[in-house]
Amino acid sequence: MSDTENTVPDGSEGRDERHKARMVRKKEVVDAKIASAQAERGVIVITTGNGKGKSSSGFGMVVRAMGHGMRTGVVQFIKGAIPSGEEMFLQRFPEQCEFHVMGEGYTWETQDRARDVAKAEAAWEVARRMLRDPGIGLVLFDELNIALKLHYLDVETVIADLRARPPMQHVVITGRGAPPALVEAADTVTDMTPVKHAFQQGIKAQRGVEM
Amino acid sequence: MSDTENTVPDGSEGRDERHKARMVRKKEVVDAKIASAQAERGVIVITTGNGKGKSSSGFGMVVRAMGHGMRTGVVQFIKGAIPSGEEMFLQRFPEQCEFHVMGEGYTWETQDRARDVAKAEAAWEVARRMLRDPGIGLVLFDELNIALKLHYLDVETVIADLRARPPMQHVVITGRGAPPALVEAADTVTDMTPVKHAFQQGIKAQRGVEM
Repeated sequence: MSDTENTVPDGSEGRDERHKARMVRKKEVVDAKIASAQAERGVIVITTGNGKGKSSSGFGMVVRAMGHGMRTGVVQFIKGAIPSGEEMFLQRFPEQCEFHVMGEGYTWETQDRARDVAKAEAAWEVARRMLRDPGIGLVLFDELNIALKLHYLDVETVIADLRARPPMQHVVITGRGAPPALVEAADTVTDMTPVKHAFQQGIKAQRGVEM
Repeated sequence: MSDTENTVPDGSEGRDERHKARMVRKKEVVDAKIASAQAERGVIVITTGNGKGKSSSGFGMVVRAMGHGMRTGVVQFIKGAIPSGEEMFLQRFPEQCEFHVMGEGYTWETQDRARDVAKAEAAWEVARRMLRDPGIGLVLFDELNIALKLHYLDVETVIADLRARPPMQHVVITGRGAPPALVEAADTVTDMTPVKHAFQQGIKAQRGVEM
């Protein structure tokens, strides 16, 4: 704001001009990057870390792909004792989303390693079938990282199956503790870092947001 | 595996037992935490940072809430020049998801600050109406953080409107650069930290995964 009452450009006009000049430069940089990034192929996306949003980000990508008319596949490796909101919603669209819940709750609920290993192996069989189906545009392997971290599955076998998939198929893998070899094999990796969490403040896990 | 052929427990049985003991202890800790977290109210969730997955995490939470039969609202503050997969998908369900795209592409595409401010203010009017509707269980304000960071909207006004919402309503806010006052007002905050990105490796933004 300016105190003067004449017609010379005041602070806000100068601010608008500077903003425009900055945005013109930014557009040049972004456009050049887009022009140089021309390879089209399926990508492997990993969301890992201890923060919230790993699975919901994966489900958001499933919905995005479905919005483009793609067929999708979901395998949940660990969760599943309670039907989730995502499961209840996506199972309305069997023609566009093949949804498998293979785990039996968190591993500290089951307390039986041999059984967890057998469940993880059965889940990977379903996942491998999806990885051989070029009609599926995007697959989500939810909490696969946890199954790998606990050595329920062999990471090299998993990577070999991922590499053999149809060239345009996208894969999204979630869960804390992504193994380094899987990070190396992926195209895009995000670590979801917790800043604060409602749970620490005595707020119960909320239907809709966390389940 | 063990080379012995007698019936004493081999290494894998010992491993299973240790696993079980560890998981029993972990279950006690998790159950105690759940028992102490009993407050039920709507929460404010923020996904910020420079990594991928902020918006898709928000859309995942919308789908989760819809799976529980909740009505939801979405306001996109910045994106919108190209219809996204999420938009195309969620607009199939007008009775369960009220979807508004208020922005006009990224700000470096428009290069007009006054126009961006007017658009952001109109978007906040829609958001405020949702924040007064107790029939909406979860709202997503996608890329609101960017509108705040660029000072298109006043953060104190936004926080006051958030605080005045119905007590059980959840709010999800996405976008890089969440202002400190908003982080302070939120219940759960995650920073999405980039580890690697396909775009840096010359791979074009892919339909379904990133658009």
